[in-house]
Amino acid sequence: MINVGVLGATGAVGQRFVQLLAGHPWFNLTTLTASERSAGKKYKDVVNWRLDVPFPEETGELVVRPTTVESVKGLDIVFSALPANIAGEIEIAIADAGVGVCSNASSHRMDPDVPLVIPEVNHDHLGLIDVQRDAGRDGFIVANPNCSTIVLCMSLEPMRSLGFSDVKVATMQAISGAGFEGIAAMSIYENVVPFIGSEEEKMEREPLKIMGSFDGAEVIPASFTVSASCHRVPVIDGHTMAIWMESAASVEEAVRAFSTYKAPFSGLPHQPAHSVLYLDSENRPQPRLDRNRGDGMTVSVGRVREGLRYITMGHNTIRGAAGASVLNAELIASKKYL
Amino acid sequence: MINVGVLGATGAVGQRFVQLLAGHPWFNLTTLTASERSAGKKYKDVVNWRLDVPFPEETGELVVRPTTVESVKGLDIVFSALPANIAGEIEIAIADAGVGVCSNASSHRMDPDVPLVIPEVNHDHLGLIDVQRDAGRDGFIVANPNCSTIVLCMSLEPMRSLGFSDVKVATMQAISGAGFEGIAAMSIYENVVPFIGSEEEKMEREPLKIMGSFDGAEVIPASFTVSASCHRVPVIDGHTMAIWMESAASVEEAVRAFSTYKAPFSGLPHQPAHSVLYLDSENRPQPRLDRNRGDGMTVSVGRVREGLRYITMGHNTIRGAAGASVLNAELIASKKYL
Amino acid sequence: MINVGVLGATGAVGQRFVQLLAGHPWFNLTTLTASERSAGKKYKDVVNWRLDVPFPEETGELVVRPTTVESVKGLDIVFSALPANIAGEIEIAIADAGVGVCSNASSHRMDPDVPLVIPEVNHDHLGLIDVQRDAGRDGFIVANPNCSTIVLCMSLEPMRSLGFSDVKVATMQAISGAGFEGIAAMSIYENVVPFIGSEEEKMEREPLKIMGSFDGAEVIPASFTVSASCHRVPVIDGHTMAIWMESAASVEEAVRAFSTYKAPFSGLPHQPAHSVLYLDSENRPQPRLDRNRGDGMTVSVGRVREGLRYITMGHNTIRGAAGASVLNAELIASKKYL
Amino acid sequence: MINVGVLGATGAVGQRFVQLLAGHPWFNLTTLTASERSAGKKYKDVVNWRLDVPFPEETGELVVRPTTVESVKGLDIVFSALPANIAGEIEIAIADAGVGVCSNASSHRMDPDVPLVIPEVNHDHLGLIDVQRDAGRDGFIVANPNCSTIVLCMSLEPMRSLGFSDVKVATMQAISGAGFEGIAAMSIYENVVPFIGSEEEKMEREPLKIMGSFDGAEVIPASFTVSASCHRVPVIDGHTMAIWMESAASVEEAVRAFSTYKAPFSGLPHQPAHSVLYLDSENRPQPRLDRNRGDGMTVSVGRVREGLRYITMGHNTIRGAAGASVLNAELIASKKYL
Repeated sequence: MINVGVLGATGAVGQRFVQLLAGHPWFNLTTLTASERSAGKKYKDVVNWRLDVPFPEETGELVVRPTTVESVKGLDIVFSALPANIAGEIEIAIADAGVGVCSNASSHRMDPDVPLVIPEVNHDHLGLIDVQRDAGRDGFIVANPNCSTIVLCMSLEPMRSLGFSDVKVATMQAISGAGFEGIAAMSIYENVVPFIGSEEEKMEREPLKIMGSFDGAEVIPASFTVSASCHRVPVIDGHTMAIWMESAASVEEAVRAFSTYKAPFSGLPHQPAHSVLYLDSENRPQPRLDRNRGDGMTVSVGRVREGLRYITMGHNTIRGAAGASVLNAELIASKKYL
Repeated sequence: MINVGVLGATGAVGQRFVQLLAGHPWFNLTTLTASERSAGKKYKDVVNWRLDVPFPEETGELVVRPTTVESVKGLDIVFSALPANIAGEIEIAIADAGVGVCSNASSHRMDPDVPLVIPEVNHDHLGLIDVQRDAGRDGFIVANPNCSTIVLCMSLEPMRSLGFSDVKVATMQAISGAGFEGIAAMSIYENVVPFIGSEEEKMEREPLKIMGSFDGAEVIPASFTVSASCHRVPVIDGHTMAIWMESAASVEEAVRAFSTYKAPFSGLPHQPAHSVLYLDSENRPQPRLDRNRGDGMTVSVGRVREGLRYITMGHNTIRGAAGASVLNAELIASKKYL
Repeated sequence: MINVGVLGATGAVGQRFVQLLAGHPWFNLTTLTASERSAGKKYKDVVNWRLDVPFPEETGELVVRPTTVESVKGLDIVFSALPANIAGEIEIAIADAGVGVCSNASSHRMDPDVPLVIPEVNHDHLGLIDVQRDAGRDGFIVANPNCSTIVLCMSLEPMRSLGFSDVKVATMQAISGAGFEGIAAMSIYENVVPFIGSEEEKMEREPLKIMGSFDGAEVIPASFTVSASCHRVPVIDGHTMAIWMESAASVEEAVRAFSTYKAPFSGLPHQPAHSVLYLDSENRPQPRLDRNRGDGMTVSVGRVREGLRYITMGHNTIRGAAGASVLNAELIASKKYL
Repeated sequence: MINVGVLGATGAVGQRFVQLLAGHPWFNLTTLTASERSAGKKYKDVVNWRLDVPFPEETGELVVRPTTVESVKGLDIVFSALPANIAGEIEIAIADAGVGVCSNASSHRMDPDVPLVIPEVNHDHLGLIDVQRDAGRDGFIVANPNCSTIVLCMSLEPMRSLGFSDVKVATMQAISGAGFEGIAAMSIYENVVPFIGSEEEKMEREPLKIMGSFDGAEVIPASFTVSASCHRVPVIDGHTMAIWMESAASVEEAVRAFSTYKAPFSGLPHQPAHSVLYLDSENRPQPRLDRNRGDGMTVSVGRVREGLRYITMGHNTIRGAAGASVLNAELIASKKYL
């Protein structure tokens, strides 16, 4: 078994990590960290469990530690659900101390030597781990992209061989993306908020790195562009997106690409049967009905039309956050980077 | 006073017509029609008033008539809130019988001799009334566009002099657009439905006629294109849209165009102080907070960004339906077409 | 294996039956019925699957039959998700033809010889099956109560030995209780509707039969009274209730009764670990967070206060409908009534 | 004109005060206070206006002052929208400095010499102002009750002459009652929270004072009891309540009492045509459809049934908060207490 921990285990993404790691077939969850205030107490006594899945009772008995290098030294991997303003320094210190960091934080996503990975899209970028090690780091940092970026890129991957450019994407994002306390009910109920701080910038920047090519030393960014318009809607989980792209592909070719898409690897515990699933109905995907496909790890696509236009949707706190990091770690473990 | 009636007065749009016409300074609401089942009864006894504004008690005393030519003969104007499958024939018969028809139905919107009018955008298209009369019609049919088309075109109008083409629009539309019973709660609550029947087609077709040029005999369609992706979101009233366009205009020029826009006429009772209002805040417009600006007749614009991208939002059953028809009728009355 | 079918398999409760029966360890789901329009087609081609759990692919291959006696003859048990206006006659005919009917319909709930059963509360009432058989019926009809009644009575059961009378209950009921198309979004979104047709009557009548005593021949109704006020709130699944009762029990005694409650039997496949679960937090139970406890079969109780007052909540379409019937059937099978 | 100010003018209730006082026929709004951070700036530059009614532009020009005695000295009345932890001391200091304080805060509601007033219910309690003045206070403090208490007591008032006791009330309360930022969307969306801090205590304590009798020196509490169960539901504005009471009155007598109820005074600017309005429909009142009756000042009642049971609903931030204080001030002004 591989010993793992979660940094920032009490928040919305932290709880998702705990949900996905409790009972994991490869990973042994031994360590949870949180703020000083919670340190020294049992997880069950400090967490306000707000997921609609059962609380993992055995994990509840773990004693929470402060978020320090000492707390996680000796672990094989830590999953970081830290806020960006804290994650920056501590993730580096932990990686330098010999621990692998699979991070959901945005702090190091654009660092040249940090792979920004979606397993189905750019698993070869993990080669940057060797670059980190050559530079003297004992552990590593591997980042997963922003939630919206992940859903977008998963839907772009089947189109890669058909060719595309000039992507425009309008998002309808779920409130869970802002954390349990991030959005007041008076702000979003019976409403749309057409702005999410830094989200458009992330969606326009991250895909070029993710879908860029790794030459063994660095990532050459992809050459398409993304123009994003990001909106919050009253949905609990599941980011829905309307996408346009320039492409020589016909509707039929695109539907075939989505329908026949297969991930380039198999056998990882959190890998769904369909990483991308094409839904034929005229009014799908829908977040409430489709977000739990593949236990939240499947990205659904539908309504390919001339334009070239389509709809995509994925679970933002599973596929788009905690599940993304866990799948990255499973890929890393399968590739013997530990 | 100008005597007016409402065809289909008990539905969602019909009730909005009654709300806007009760106590109107120019129009005297004398006639309400509904299905045979309701005919002969007082309006207050057949309508299930479901708006959140007070029921106009005096109008409630009107005896509902069947939706026939006889019921409205002699009126100056009737407002049609009929469903499209009924509106087609009866609107022609009523217009031929000498009554002006201001219709919210889609049936005749694309008829070559029917003006498809948004007063601020193409009031000159009312010249088609003369074309109708030259062809022997005593009354007239004037249509207003689909609710989403209206909000879109209102936001395009200030950009007209700056020039634009290749419009892409992703809508987040309110549930009231489907009528009181149109969408089940189980379908849309905590959900997004990325499909609205025929909506994308209307949004791609109608703007070209509306923003086309009238040469005295016919309308030459505008040459830009619209590519729409339409989505229903859990909002009661107010359609929000993310728009991209090709334009040589800078962000500053576009903001100035929206901020300084003035309607080409003034003095109509339902004309708001600002037909288009530019909102400076980073997260506006929002449907719940901004839809009632100008008593529901103002279309708000915000977040102009490079791309060229912006957000627009308008009240779909007031500016986008009943209010649109009433403003058309006010314009017609002011131009002495009656 | 026991061969079973579902009557009315395409609606909201019908789909829940299919979800619970697909892969059932004791029951072999062989037959699905629906309206004539769907008969002869594969289930997957006629059902509009609208649950947020995966569609059971193998069941989708079953060919739907019309809802007739012939369609289900020879089965051991059929589960009825029929509307009350259809269920009345056909359920009798099917039971007379030798098939056991576990019905969620209200038609026969108050029939003197039909047991109205919640396994944890009155499993002994199944003795009425013998009364039915003595009267010449080859099969049987066993009804489960109305969804709200079930949640209420589950919470009353632990209080039975402490004694209570004069129950007052205010419900906050989920929209799924009205079926997929039962409530328009414009009716319930951002709203409360303080009326549900026939619901208060059912909640005041059914508990007296359920908690009555069976003397081997008939059920003597319980002597407490229920006064209900029923309200619909914008929640997808999960009925929440505020309950007052006259009781000599102290708060501590009631909390102990709820906390230590154990079902009078064990080992049924759909029986949860806790049929009634007492939650200590000051603000629980909550439908979105607690409805899936025990896979939707656990009824949660919280906030016992002087008065005697408490809150209870349960999943209305699982514990309160399809799951209730399935648990009844499991109890019947375990008692060798087949 | 009477010069007035608002303490705590930027919050949810503070904004409602500004809405109701802008353009008031008797009151001249000259002073707005807020935290030190906002002091010295124009109101329009510090307020994040989040009501769905237009921002009163002229009031926006007022320069915000710190919440101190000096800021409001010389005013006739100040309206307090302060949080309870701040209101306690400063309201006394302001009243002692000769200013009348109409407070929505809970701090002094139960003080023996502070009238807790709902004009239609206990306007005679204003006599306690004389008691305050006899004790040396130059100004006065008049409190309005908690939002839920007001709606409850308004509905109890027409029943007073018929007699009642043993009130049980289950509330379904709107999220605006907790302020703009008070409740996270992740907490209440698609959910019910069966707990509101201190709310049940307020509802059980305040009505006895309000409906008590004033003997010229003090208020003798009423002798009925209230047992409350308070719940938050996903509604923006409007508290709905299910009420039971012991009463010898028949359903018909109660309906007549509600239907014929008339306020004991008239002519105040914010007094609605119907302080209590009985709605005949089987499914009313509903918050979204009925909360704006009487510009938010009418409390609606419906569904009187045996039990004695009924439903009541009122706008919590207008009738239940800012409007309550303003109506109190209008009553005070009409009685020449200034």
